[in-house]
Amino acid sequence: MTTGVRRRMGVEERREQLIGVALDLFSRRSPDDVSIDEIASAAGISRPLVYHYFPGKLSLYEAALQRASDDLAARFVEPRKGPLGARLLRVMRRYFDFVDEHGPGFSALMRGGPAVGSSTTNALINAVRQAAYDQILAHLDVQDPPARLELVVRSWISLAESTALIWLDGRRIPRAELERQLVHDFAALAAVGAAYDEELAALLRRVFAKEPADGPFGDLLGRLAALAA
Amino acid sequence: MTTGVRRRMGVEERREQLIGVALDLFSRRSPDDVSIDEIASAAGISRPLVYHYFPGKLSLYEAALQRASDDLAARFVEPRKGPLGARLLRVMRRYFDFVDEHGPGFSALMRGGPAVGSSTTNALINAVRQAAYDQILAHLDVQDPPARLELVVRSWISLAESTALIWLDGRRIPRAELERQLVHDFAALAAVGAAYDEELAALLRRVFAKEPADGPFGDLLGRLAALAA
Repeated sequence: MTTGVRRRMGVEERREQLIGVALDLFSRRSPDDVSIDEIASAAGISRPLVYHYFPGKLSLYEAALQRASDDLAARFVEPRKGPLGARLLRVMRRYFDFVDEHGPGFSALMRGGPAVGSSTTNALINAVRQAAYDQILAHLDVQDPPARLELVVRSWISLAESTALIWLDGRRIPRAELERQLVHDFAALAAVGAAYDEELAALLRRVFAKEPADGPFGDLLGRLAALAA
Repeated sequence: MTTGVRRRMGVEERREQLIGVALDLFSRRSPDDVSIDEIASAAGISRPLVYHYFPGKLSLYEAALQRASDDLAARFVEPRKGPLGARLLRVMRRYFDFVDEHGPGFSALMRGGPAVGSSTTNALINAVRQAAYDQILAHLDVQDPPARLELVVRSWISLAESTALIWLDGRRIPRAELERQLVHDFAALAAVGAAYDEELAALLRRVFAKEPADGPFGDLLGRLAALAA
């Protein structure tokens, strides 16, 4: 063996490398526009060798999406200490980092379409949404959420998705502003929901009582009070 | 011809009848679970005759979806007079009527999946979203929306969709409450957006000034002020 000879990779190592190369390409452009030839070329291997590891583009796409989903779900994890508004704001920053890194692929996936509407991709999307939901309930210290709290949390998660998609379409609003706005949106939707549900109202009062006046939640309450005056 | 003989339909009339029968079936169950045989049987014609009018299930599904989309877009149209909160509340009632009438089909479509992820179905969904967006801007009397107003309106439309989907999943919250809550959500998201954009803040002050204290917007402002106190 000389140093000029390329080292042979093991099966698992080669699969992991191919997934990484594919995820990078699927992130930069709509998955429909990425070919197996291109993935092979970017990985420095032949097209037949790609098929040796993955039966087709869809299975490679799904493996890449699985890796991206795990990555995103890991970014939702946040230590359970300090004010809630500040915790949520840190998660929003990591969420927009992810959206920024995977922009075109994220848009194509979330807007749906032929290559990305399989039941596997839908299951992965739903698993990420569920991970976000579980994290939020854990931070709110709620085990058995009333229906109106579940609605607030789940519908806010879809609001965060649509906000990210609108941001990607032209990036006309600075992302730091949208990260903060989504924290405000959460508080605002929770406040609306609290108008219908005493349990939710009590929860919200408990959360707001611990928020510093200069945190994102305190900031919102001041602004809303000014608007309502 | 005797009265006992079934009248022959013209081509266009038969197509329209088939679309109506298909829409009814696609509304009651997930489109993947509806067969051409069933549609033929419900229309009282043979399976080959269905194929005479539509090349396959997808084209019949798309025709049914086109009719449903036109129907839904028509329900967004509301006279431009009276307080805005009350107008939006009437539209929300008609929106939930539609969602109620087409529940399982609406869920299957909006949650995505093999039969419903074609580029045609995506285009129809986007056309309905755009119709909703155009109506809201017209009612706000805005021709050239600032980016933050566009974000508020488009992200609220996605919030209305996810709220409807969550409602369909068990119907644990009365729909009348959700209709009102979505009007409140609109005002709340607009209020958050107004914190970042003077043009949006001025628009909101203009709208709120014309709202009666007992309308849905006035109601919300009172509740938020109480919560902020």
